[in-house]
Amino acid sequence: MIPLEEIRQISVVSPSKIVMLVIDGLGGLPDAKTGKTELETARTPYLDHLAKKGVCGLIDPVSPGITPGSGPGHLALFGYDPLKFIVGRGVLEALGIGFELTRSDVAARGNFCTVNDEGLITDRRAGRITTDKCAELCTLLGQIKLEGVELFVLPVKEHRFLLALRGDGLAAEVSDTDPQQTGVAPNMALSTEPQAKHTAHIVNTFINEASEILARHHPANMTLLRGFSKLPDIPSMPEIYKLTPAAIASYPMYKGLAKLVGMKIFNADSGINEELNILAHYYGEHDFFYIHVKEADSAGEDGDFKRKVRVIEQVDYALPQLLNLKPEVIIVTGDHSTPALLKGHSWHPVPVLLRSQWCRPDNVKEFSESDCISGGLGRLSTTDIMPLAMANALKLTKFGA
Amino acid sequence: MIPLEEIRQISVVSPSKIVMLVIDGLGGLPDAKTGKTELETARTPYLDHLAKKGVCGLIDPVSPGITPGSGPGHLALFGYDPLKFIVGRGVLEALGIGFELTRSDVAARGNFCTVNDEGLITDRRAGRITTDKCAELCTLLGQIKLEGVELFVLPVKEHRFLLALRGDGLAAEVSDTDPQQTGVAPNMALSTEPQAKHTAHIVNTFINEASEILARHHPANMTLLRGFSKLPDIPSMPEIYKLTPAAIASYPMYKGLAKLVGMKIFNADSGINEELNILAHYYGEHDFFYIHVKEADSAGEDGDFKRKVRVIEQVDYALPQLLNLKPEVIIVTGDHSTPALLKGHSWHPVPVLLRSQWCRPDNVKEFSESDCISGGLGRLSTTDIMPLAMANALKLTKFGA
Repeated sequence: MIPLEEIRQISVVSPSKIVMLVIDGLGGLPDAKTGKTELETARTPYLDHLAKKGVCGLIDPVSPGITPGSGPGHLALFGYDPLKFIVGRGVLEALGIGFELTRSDVAARGNFCTVNDEGLITDRRAGRITTDKCAELCTLLGQIKLEGVELFVLPVKEHRFLLALRGDGLAAEVSDTDPQQTGVAPNMALSTEPQAKHTAHIVNTFINEASEILARHHPANMTLLRGFSKLPDIPSMPEIYKLTPAAIASYPMYKGLAKLVGMKIFNADSGINEELNILAHYYGEHDFFYIHVKEADSAGEDGDFKRKVRVIEQVDYALPQLLNLKPEVIIVTGDHSTPALLKGHSWHPVPVLLRSQWCRPDNVKEFSESDCISGGLGRLSTTDIMPLAMANALKLTKFGA
Repeated sequence: MIPLEEIRQISVVSPSKIVMLVIDGLGGLPDAKTGKTELETARTPYLDHLAKKGVCGLIDPVSPGITPGSGPGHLALFGYDPLKFIVGRGVLEALGIGFELTRSDVAARGNFCTVNDEGLITDRRAGRITTDKCAELCTLLGQIKLEGVELFVLPVKEHRFLLALRGDGLAAEVSDTDPQQTGVAPNMALSTEPQAKHTAHIVNTFINEASEILARHHPANMTLLRGFSKLPDIPSMPEIYKLTPAAIASYPMYKGLAKLVGMKIFNADSGINEELNILAHYYGEHDFFYIHVKEADSAGEDGDFKRKVRVIEQVDYALPQLLNLKPEVIIVTGDHSTPALLKGHSWHPVPVLLRSQWCRPDNVKEFSESDCISGGLGRLSTTDIMPLAMANALKLTKFGA
């Protein structure tokens, strides 16, 4: 991929608009009976029309064979090398629940867990306590006093919580206390760099105090922490692309990721139609829109092939509202594949379509994994999509004389 | 490509098995009359079936346009960036005959050659003397005394031998004495870095003494040395992939390469059937098997189109023994192309097929260069194959949250 600094040098402001529609987990695997993937099974006349008029391909979010998490998948779509810009697990949890981290905060992903009388872990997830119970315990732990540090303990889901530390001189170079196995004791937090010694000490103090408080709350009688991290230092999309980007999404993590790269956030809780209403309403105010459709991934994760098909069909059915706006560039793709057959994210490359006045046509007749193989974009890195979008919007000048 | 360190972080142990069948020099060029390459001419029902059920593509071992040697070609197949991990020819020869180099040894590949009365090379391979004769001459040369340096001269095969130097302060930055052409005299060994001055002097002393000893052994009356090298610092496949890898091969160099990356070596001298017998016998003990078929490359190098076709057909005919084991992932490819038309390695990308339960199908109907162009893998770097194999064996967890 071309370095972001080079893009910054050649990007220009123009009135043209880019809409990037991200159907989370879009790529799939074929159903054994029909031989067709979720996308191939779905009836998608508008997407097929876009694919026919535009140019298609397959994209690898990180690298061929690598299954990306949502963080790397989205950073790549926004044009950031996911091997270079690492969003820590703690930061992702904070983004996921909409907790506003400052630049100096240190965040960690927490698990309530069960330890036995000898202090050995017997269940890393404390029997998956309810989210209500988690919230109750977080309130208790939030009352722990740590010298010179403000403490936030917030429930995420079931046994999962966020620990955020705010104060002067905190560093994220702290090792996980979660040994990621049972039958052993939790690890002490250790500083992996000298500047994090103080932070590791604070973390261990927190864990000790927490274990006293939790002693009478079996099975959630201990905490495990991992992924200590700060907000990454990442140049914003307005800086690099000279865009005024906006995100339309419902799930906190995606809004968080979008905010991280400098997008304005519009919340849309009730699906694609509300998202496209917001798009239409604010269309004049931004030149880049990222629209996130979560439900395709959720259906894939649940192994629900038919529901994933339905989600894709719903998106297609709603598309005219987007098409009527006539954006100069439309991109439809996913942040990764989530085949219902695998019930999870996968490494398979993701179908992508790009429609603009300036596409060089290919022979793709419908938006499907199998047609995208022979698309004019070929097989690309996901990080190539933003430069292509910018180019098709005539927002990039020549590189070199 | 994704850094090996990242792969190490996400690789996990599982019972699934990967078999990588490397048909050396597999890729070809079409015969002028039929318009078909060696692979396209060969009758290969089993390979075609695998290609139909699996996913295909074309891979570049080093970079488009670059003709790789066997070292880079194989390192790329094993997932190592061949531009970063350089294995000297001398080291390869040492590993291939099971000679245990220490970290400070310097090794070189030797040829017995023929020089005429004027000292000009007339045959770089001394008429391909027998391996027995080679061994006899190596014993003679092994008696040469060099001050402060222990000397090993060991037969490899036919005219090829290994020279290994052991002692303090040896450096590998010594130029080849093999000019790689006839009609000229052998070169003097020169140090290309100051620290190798002493080593170059020792090498020239050896060559002089050797030429005296060999004077009465026409046609093997001189030596040529090349590829002075030390063991490279290379992380092993067990470390990176958490595999228990095994190699089944006959030629020393390939066994040497496999050993270098931490494979257990099984020797198979009598062809693909013996190799697949070994595979079946030790199938339970390893989770990764690299099987090497040399003869396709040899036929290509000899410009023998028909023989290369026959070798490919023999491999195909033997395949059921492999298929019966039902490995979770099968890869069939080559380390580079060796078109019979070019009588040597070439830069043409290499056809690859990958078969697993989790392949997303493509429209490839047979295993051929022309079909692979439109395969679902597209055109990839050879270094992407190991991550893809690992992913398809479900041996890689998610990258990032």
